[in-house]
Amino acid sequence: MPKKAIIAAAAIAVAASGAQAQSERKQLDAAESDPAKLGWMQGTPPPADKQVKFEDGSYFRFPQLRWSFSNWRQFFPTLPLHRGDAPVHAFPRAERDDIDALTFTPLSGDKPMSWKEALGANYTDAIVVLHKGKIVYERYMGVTTAASQHIAFSVTKSYIGTLAASLTAEGKLDPAKLVTDYVPELADSGFAGATVRQVMDMTTGIAFDETYTNADADIIRHARAGRAAPRRADYNGPDGFLAFLPTIGKQGEHGERFTYRTANSDALGWIITRATGIPVREQLEQRFWSKLGMEQDAALVVDAQGTPFAGGGLMVSLRDMARFGEMMRQGGKWNGQQVVPAAAISDITKGGGKAEFAKNGAYPTLPGWSYRNQWWVSHNDHGAYMARGIHGQAIYIDPKAEMVIARFASHPVAGNVAIDPTSIPAYEALGRLLADEKRN
Amino acid sequence: MPKKAIIAAAAIAVAASGAQAQSERKQLDAAESDPAKLGWMQGTPPPADKQVKFEDGSYFRFPQLRWSFSNWRQFFPTLPLHRGDAPVHAFPRAERDDIDALTFTPLSGDKPMSWKEALGANYTDAIVVLHKGKIVYERYMGVTTAASQHIAFSVTKSYIGTLAASLTAEGKLDPAKLVTDYVPELADSGFAGATVRQVMDMTTGIAFDETYTNADADIIRHARAGRAAPRRADYNGPDGFLAFLPTIGKQGEHGERFTYRTANSDALGWIITRATGIPVREQLEQRFWSKLGMEQDAALVVDAQGTPFAGGGLMVSLRDMARFGEMMRQGGKWNGQQVVPAAAISDITKGGGKAEFAKNGAYPTLPGWSYRNQWWVSHNDHGAYMARGIHGQAIYIDPKAEMVIARFASHPVAGNVAIDPTSIPAYEALGRLLADEKRN
Repeated sequence: MPKKAIIAAAAIAVAASGAQAQSERKQLDAAESDPAKLGWMQGTPPPADKQVKFEDGSYFRFPQLRWSFSNWRQFFPTLPLHRGDAPVHAFPRAERDDIDALTFTPLSGDKPMSWKEALGANYTDAIVVLHKGKIVYERYMGVTTAASQHIAFSVTKSYIGTLAASLTAEGKLDPAKLVTDYVPELADSGFAGATVRQVMDMTTGIAFDETYTNADADIIRHARAGRAAPRRADYNGPDGFLAFLPTIGKQGEHGERFTYRTANSDALGWIITRATGIPVREQLEQRFWSKLGMEQDAALVVDAQGTPFAGGGLMVSLRDMARFGEMMRQGGKWNGQQVVPAAAISDITKGGGKAEFAKNGAYPTLPGWSYRNQWWVSHNDHGAYMARGIHGQAIYIDPKAEMVIARFASHPVAGNVAIDPTSIPAYEALGRLLADEKRN
Repeated sequence: MPKKAIIAAAAIAVAASGAQAQSERKQLDAAESDPAKLGWMQGTPPPADKQVKFEDGSYFRFPQLRWSFSNWRQFFPTLPLHRGDAPVHAFPRAERDDIDALTFTPLSGDKPMSWKEALGANYTDAIVVLHKGKIVYERYMGVTTAASQHIAFSVTKSYIGTLAASLTAEGKLDPAKLVTDYVPELADSGFAGATVRQVMDMTTGIAFDETYTNADADIIRHARAGRAAPRRADYNGPDGFLAFLPTIGKQGEHGERFTYRTANSDALGWIITRATGIPVREQLEQRFWSKLGMEQDAALVVDAQGTPFAGGGLMVSLRDMARFGEMMRQGGKWNGQQVVPAAAISDITKGGGKAEFAKNGAYPTLPGWSYRNQWWVSHNDHGAYMARGIHGQAIYIDPKAEMVIARFASHPVAGNVAIDPTSIPAYEALGRLLADEKRN
């Protein structure tokens, strides 16, 4: 099959998973499913048919999720990441009027699409583009505003991975050590025998089903243990993310291939807490929130033990997410201070094993990519790399174009394979435009 | 019975309510129950016997509550009150060394006690004293720090009452109207026939049992409806504070006497939302958090409909609570701006009906006091008035001494009648000291 057909087939397969319900949900386009227009949670109290609830699962159903993702905090107990009292870093503005009309060819089609059309095709909630540290483009849609703290889902992992890479560069964490050297509680689990590096790069052979549409998949059971998914009244499973991790078994060999499993990120959070004696929440606050001129305190979903959901619990404003991306693009420096060691940044941008990534087979939209320190690395001619979360959350950093894109979305489909076709080529085209290159 | 004996008897009666369990819990003094020393929630994850949980009710048991009150947010879904990006108002400091040794006579005893001894007797978590807008005294104990967002419990009501008084002064709310003029949903409830003023001053005759130690009391059922207390697995009661309010019946006549019932405060939140079309959370943010140079975003417990717990859901840092008190002391002005109308402040400070208050009989520690706009007014010769929350939360404003005290506590007993004897005379003595008066 030619590449485009593979991508189209993969997108259809993802869209079809969850069968009829999911395909019905797909019928509303971005304008039709606009959460402001549908009136979710309007009124005091909202009428019963306009309520979006955690307990009944409606918070995670399309089209309600278009409201939920910008209002995630009211479904979960959270802890703050305090910004402290440092001044806000206000991005200079140099907005361009040539971006909306920029065209590109989606991965799964032949017809060109404009940047502006792509925002709808992607069910974008909010997007900001920085060029050389200035805002050149910024849009908010539906119920999402500059103040909204949108759930970042697995973009959270890249913050944790950057912490781990930083601690490694600073000699406080040894990726060559075994997971169990730091966390003996995992000795009887599928993590036994894995190195910290394998956890950081998701090449462990743990048994962990990451199928979001299967209510009994490990990813859902893991979330349930951490109160991040509804429990049935008779729930008697593990209580807490760190109580769930030791129950995970083994499925393959460690180190052989990349397999995206959220449990690795939560194990990594546990490891770096043990390595430093400092909880992940405090480390995120000390290293990032107190230093990057953030606009807001952010929030982290926590379980009943106060452990943050390292695999996907960050709620953050769009521009604060962009500040993190911009610090990465600047080689870890912010305001003259080295917030993340330069060695950590280069260890991320050089990427991971392309062969291990290719063996996976589930990422037709990411040919030639790799995964390193919880970041997705394109190895394209701009050296772009990404933080990625389900339903379209993204940070896209293009070092050559000196561009950072932060995007929130509420696509009906979880898997980014359905979202990449109208996103990645758009980002690449914008990178070429901003770098003053001819289109190819 | 002489007054002191009545107070002592009332304190014993409160302490004895909940019977044996409660009296056993009382055995640990402040030092013995220090939550840092007891190691609650230390470790990743904390050992099972050191976990403090919402689901099993341990979060609200002494001595665990000494940890919980400073970490309330991780038990509940919350919404933020954003401080925005205005500069922090840093209080000038003029700390005095003569406060710890200040002595006073507790209401229920004859022996003098020092200010410093009273902090232990009260299970104080944190206290700050402002004099003429400067910090003259500030202490943090146990696990509570300047950054901690402690639950303020019913101190929350005074913020809501100040909103209501402000809207009244601005002509946006009419206290003479019936509750049902604003909220027709309450037509078949005990609120029918009550005026907004009666709700503001808690003289409604609704049937609402406010006994904190009774698991089936209305106050607990109300909290449970709002997810602010654990539900049993088979819970099928109302979902949401605003779903509970219409189920409340009637017990007495409206307007005859003061009876402290939290449901009035949540009804008031509903009323002012309807009167203005602006949710309470936004009003609190617009009027107070964005204007008073707050250090932090605060947090509000919300129910599944996103309605804040107006009766007791505010989590706030100590100094941010003091900023609110200082704005009140300054007649509603802050930084040259009239944040609360002067007429609203004077309507609060002049107090409510002393006769209606005295009829209640349950407040031997507050002789001659009244209740107005959700504030407790002393009518003493300094014109002091208070915001009060269970287990010892307080703002004490002494206009004559130009003094504001903000205090967080985690006393084993909920009712302030057990806490006032070593607090109110201490505050009065400090007011006299700061006003340069002779002791009497």
